[in-house]
Amino acid sequence: MTDIARIEAASRRLQGHLPVTPLLHAPLLDRLAGRRVFVKAECLQLTGSFKARGGWAAVSALGEAERRRGVIAYSSGNHAQGVALAAHRHGSPCVILMPSDAPAVKIANSRAYGAEVILYDRESEDREVIGGKLASDRGLTLIRPYDDLEVMAGQGTVGLELADQARAEGIDRAEVLVCCGGGGLASGIALALAARSPGLQVRTVEPVGFDDMARSLAHGSRQVNPAARGSICDAILTPTPGELTFPILQRLAGPGLAVTDDQALAAMAAAFSQLRLVLEPGGAVALAAALFAPGLSDPVIAVATGGNVDPARFADALAHPDATNGIGGRISP
Amino acid sequence: MTDIARIEAASRRLQGHLPVTPLLHAPLLDRLAGRRVFVKAECLQLTGSFKARGGWAAVSALGEAERRRGVIAYSSGNHAQGVALAAHRHGSPCVILMPSDAPAVKIANSRAYGAEVILYDRESEDREVIGGKLASDRGLTLIRPYDDLEVMAGQGTVGLELADQARAEGIDRAEVLVCCGGGGLASGIALALAARSPGLQVRTVEPVGFDDMARSLAHGSRQVNPAARGSICDAILTPTPGELTFPILQRLAGPGLAVTDDQALAAMAAAFSQLRLVLEPGGAVALAAALFAPGLSDPVIAVATGGNVDPARFADALAHPDATNGIGGRISP
Repeated sequence: MTDIARIEAASRRLQGHLPVTPLLHAPLLDRLAGRRVFVKAECLQLTGSFKARGGWAAVSALGEAERRRGVIAYSSGNHAQGVALAAHRHGSPCVILMPSDAPAVKIANSRAYGAEVILYDRESEDREVIGGKLASDRGLTLIRPYDDLEVMAGQGTVGLELADQARAEGIDRAEVLVCCGGGGLASGIALALAARSPGLQVRTVEPVGFDDMARSLAHGSRQVNPAARGSICDAILTPTPGELTFPILQRLAGPGLAVTDDQALAAMAAAFSQLRLVLEPGGAVALAAALFAPGLSDPVIAVATGGNVDPARFADALAHPDATNGIGGRISP
Repeated sequence: MTDIARIEAASRRLQGHLPVTPLLHAPLLDRLAGRRVFVKAECLQLTGSFKARGGWAAVSALGEAERRRGVIAYSSGNHAQGVALAAHRHGSPCVILMPSDAPAVKIANSRAYGAEVILYDRESEDREVIGGKLASDRGLTLIRPYDDLEVMAGQGTVGLELADQARAEGIDRAEVLVCCGGGGLASGIALALAARSPGLQVRTVEPVGFDDMARSLAHGSRQVNPAARGSICDAILTPTPGELTFPILQRLAGPGLAVTDDQALAAMAAAFSQLRLVLEPGGAVALAAALFAPGLSDPVIAVATGGNVDPARFADALAHPDATNGIGGRISP
């Protein structure tokens, strides 16, 4: 089981290796949102996303023999980079199984961290089948992107930091918006906050049309998305909530939220102009909800989860009016 | 005189109002540079640049009557926003005198912080003359962008943080690259480091053709730039080193460095792809030197000073090969 003790143990293993990311805010962002917004900038984590935490927690939990044989991960990119970095720093061989349509920068960066990258087709092939076979053939330990106790504990360290940082800002009651693919980050944060700062409640944020977690929370059972692709938020397009993560969120999270691709681009634009952060679409959905969803808490906390984005996609965000906010955007001079 | 006591006093006045900015690093950035590079991310400061520190230090040092009458600043933009924010938070009226060719986002943001913005022509008008007249007409206190004891002390708080953060990373000897307009930041940091971490030495970085500080340090007297404009690094185009800042840097800094506009764009691209930070050209020159200047220390520390940049200019950086590094750039897979 992933619980606060496992999260605290992961936190001790991470210490000195991965940075504490800042909780940022900006007066003009608050004006744009119409409420106080605090942003946990996980895009500033090593490898550019919170996935470095889960990767580190999982690899550092392995025994000596397992580490020597190596690890394998399947991922649209950020989990790959997190595991690749952790494996490299622990001296473990690392195979990454990645969809062939993943952003080129994520493929290249995983290779740059020293991983062997194997591509598969997202529509016609099942990554779990391919991954399982590679793992057994080579004696690799499969590190799942979310349904893994140590990965969830590693992601939960975001919640430990957030509890302290929110307290330092005088915040003891707020909604914490967390982007959600399989739910590893959201469930880890929810566990950490329940133990450390119970006035902070997680709400998941997903792309419209890929809101399997929101629908699952509403229905009380795990729902499946109708499509596997079709949103720019590639990092968080998972078919269904995790088996391990869902019950935790069912117990601890509020209703799920969903945002459009255009709202994600607007949030990337606002992060550019008001926070000077580079966010990828999937990493910006929580901030998008903070900007656009009605009826949220004031203040609200948004976890900005990743910033690995191709320049061409980022250029789309720069073309959004909120990138020039203060000029033609929603803040008038 | 600005000395360590004045910097420490400024630090106490800033505490709880302005955030401590993180010292970031990234494995792939190190590979790109060929040395370990640490980046002090002042673009994450409130208002998007270190100038919020000097503005806050200066306004918070005013007496009650001066604060009530208000302040005036002249600036290409970042100093303006820093003073505007500080004045707003201290309840002071604020007039900003700004060149008419300043980035639109800086003009708009200064207004959004509540300042009255007055534009002037950079080529035909003297901002000091206009500013002096406005100040005396309205009883405003002029807050100079660098030749001001409290502003220098405020900027010097970057050095206090850097001394602590470098120590935490195990760095006790390194060059600290600092972008340089009038020299307020560089001199403040130099004073703080001399007192707190004397193994860290400041080296100024300027745009090629606007390297008045580097030439002044080499000649032993204050030199003037031949032109007032012609670099994309608008934030740091000052005619000559400050009267107060130059002697400090003459005593404490190493030889000055200069980088091209293309190198500044490459540094913006690397900050985008490897650090997920938005930098403006003038805020990226220290990182550019860390990436391109020969013979620097390993590790080297670069202060990334600001991130207020129009989307169109940032798009220029996205088109640079280093924005897609790991793909077509200098890190091969």
